[in-house]
Amino acid sequence: MRLSRRITGIIQGGSDGWDVYYRANRLSDEGLDITHLTIGEHDIGTDRSILDAMHEATLAGHTGYSAFNGKIGLRERVAQRVSERTGLPTTPDNVLVVPGGQAGLFATHHAACDEGDTALYIDPYYATYPGTIRSVGARPLAIPARPDRMFQPDPADIAPHAAGASSLLINSPNNPTGVNYSRDTLMGIARLCQDHGLWLISDEVYDTQLWHGQHVSPRTLPGMEAQTLVIGSLSKSHAMTGSRIGWVVGPEEAIEHMGNLATHTTYGVAGFVQEAACFALDRGPDFEAMIAAPFRRRRDLVLRLLEAQNTVRPIPADGAMYVMLDIRATGLSGEDFANRLLDTHHVAVMPGESFGQAAAGHVRVALTVDDERLAQAVGKLVALAQELTA
Amino acid sequence: MRLSRRITGIIQGGSDGWDVYYRANRLSDEGLDITHLTIGEHDIGTDRSILDAMHEATLAGHTGYSAFNGKIGLRERVAQRVSERTGLPTTPDNVLVVPGGQAGLFATHHAACDEGDTALYIDPYYATYPGTIRSVGARPLAIPARPDRMFQPDPADIAPHAAGASSLLINSPNNPTGVNYSRDTLMGIARLCQDHGLWLISDEVYDTQLWHGQHVSPRTLPGMEAQTLVIGSLSKSHAMTGSRIGWVVGPEEAIEHMGNLATHTTYGVAGFVQEAACFALDRGPDFEAMIAAPFRRRRDLVLRLLEAQNTVRPIPADGAMYVMLDIRATGLSGEDFANRLLDTHHVAVMPGESFGQAAAGHVRVALTVDDERLAQAVGKLVALAQELTA
Repeated sequence: MRLSRRITGIIQGGSDGWDVYYRANRLSDEGLDITHLTIGEHDIGTDRSILDAMHEATLAGHTGYSAFNGKIGLRERVAQRVSERTGLPTTPDNVLVVPGGQAGLFATHHAACDEGDTALYIDPYYATYPGTIRSVGARPLAIPARPDRMFQPDPADIAPHAAGASSLLINSPNNPTGVNYSRDTLMGIARLCQDHGLWLISDEVYDTQLWHGQHVSPRTLPGMEAQTLVIGSLSKSHAMTGSRIGWVVGPEEAIEHMGNLATHTTYGVAGFVQEAACFALDRGPDFEAMIAAPFRRRRDLVLRLLEAQNTVRPIPADGAMYVMLDIRATGLSGEDFANRLLDTHHVAVMPGESFGQAAAGHVRVALTVDDERLAQAVGKLVALAQELTA
Repeated sequence: MRLSRRITGIIQGGSDGWDVYYRANRLSDEGLDITHLTIGEHDIGTDRSILDAMHEATLAGHTGYSAFNGKIGLRERVAQRVSERTGLPTTPDNVLVVPGGQAGLFATHHAACDEGDTALYIDPYYATYPGTIRSVGARPLAIPARPDRMFQPDPADIAPHAAGASSLLINSPNNPTGVNYSRDTLMGIARLCQDHGLWLISDEVYDTQLWHGQHVSPRTLPGMEAQTLVIGSLSKSHAMTGSRIGWVVGPEEAIEHMGNLATHTTYGVAGFVQEAACFALDRGPDFEAMIAAPFRRRRDLVLRLLEAQNTVRPIPADGAMYVMLDIRATGLSGEDFANRLLDTHHVAVMPGESFGQAAAGHVRVALTVDDERLAQAVGKLVALAQELTA
């Protein structure tokens, strides 16, 4: 039976650099002691207080259908949080609750793109970006952010592709590079979106994990409120990855139409998860800082460990739970280096090639194990690089 | 800013018969004592034992990312349940876990239809069907199931539209009519799908609420396993509407591609909700019978109350949590009758017109309040109909 071209085209063929990740998991299953520095999963679970709040919400009767676009209490809290953090007045009518950041990526591209439209995104990129664009029938077009610019995208590289495109997807603080886009970078991107009538889709799920500089939400830049769709989530900020809860913030009309999409895709988010999200947000900035603290500490630790050598060159990690390392001095690809590191030292990192072409010759280290184990793993990584370079 | 034609086209203009539902809710909010017999929400919440199991799962650490296509334990249980209930051997590779039946409706149409394809469905229909089809960019085409055939669809009515269509969506036991499709009806539909290469999308979320006859899953009919996609859910069978948990059963290749779609739309379903679903399924058929029992009892009650008159003629309710009533003898439309009933007697029912054109002149009564209140409401409904007819 024929399946749609759209669904069969979501995943494109060829090695995507994720083989090392799957292989590391298999080796663990076989009993080897592998240090996993691959995916962005916290090494702590969701806080007990949030889980108890969720249980209380179920017992209080929040087990039936909930508002498709999100409970007003949660939309109010998100609006208030966005208003406070960005200074831009935001109301519940600007907020759609979705089951996690990925659902926000899907909804925003569905809203921005028709079949066959071109949707731009920055390389290196989070693994699901091109597939998300293809899943709404649009054509993904990657714009490289170059290592020699420390992976800050150059609007001049985007401009030639902007005419006729529908949207541009950015992510700052960035996964996989850890780079925080500067105000200058974002101003240039904003001008370009305005000149060409592009929707700017801004994935800001790492906004509480910022170690250096200031987080600028491009929705706050002059004229951009009307054409920016921001994706937020409690996955990273509150260690709630598995609860699948997030939001989209944007102009009222776009939010209303994405609410219609929600009715026809997910029928809303579990009410008790939304109640737990309200409780989590009410714990305030101190709680968020507590969740972020280990990643800041480990980022400092990794950078310090790398100071004594110059074979492995870190990209300055402004934020997010990763450090991107340039291992081109070894002469190996990121993929070959990661495979070698896994085989010889039982340390699993992600090849830069997992995230596109621009980060070839790099590996991404997730800061998701305890400090001692992380330090040992980085030591082994450096030793391997030096051995290969010698 | 321009939004996609696809997202702005999900909801089509014009009155859709849902005004009475929204008006009833507003009157309740204003303090009036309204009897709500509108939507399919249980009058009991999710069972405490299931909620406790969910909480235990969170404490046991199921709070991180889960398998995008569903936990193997849940997929195994669903496969076993489908095998046992239908007699057709089904494996976990035939099962995709989705966040509720609506997500299954979306995923199956995404898999079956490309932009501009025609997707057939039966009128009367569940409210989201045409919008779901439009949300994947396909063209919905309603095939009427006529009251004079007790709303059993006639394959001869479908045949003229089958050539070139991509899919046919059916729902049995049926919402809104309560009708269970006969084996003959389904055999005719199956032949037609085979003749024209249509995907048959079978929404079977009411399969545990069957009062009369036998439930036939069309996936079990000769030759249909390869071209049927079945949607199931714990919403109705286990009173878990708000947990958003369901599945799609189908051929391995289709399930694999819908798994890719899941990665790019929802990133899987909360692990603790899946653990709760496993617990719920393990409670077995007796638990499901207990959840279904009130609806069977109330269906019998309503039919008995209507025996003494012939102004209001019930469609024989084989299953689901509704009874559809023919009020054409009053000369009013379903919408006018429902509005009159709400205003004069504070009883809210759904106009047949909410579900398409085929059920015009009917109203749907949801069996979702206690027996005494239901009996009073039906008494008022009959009294109004007789008054209008006199």
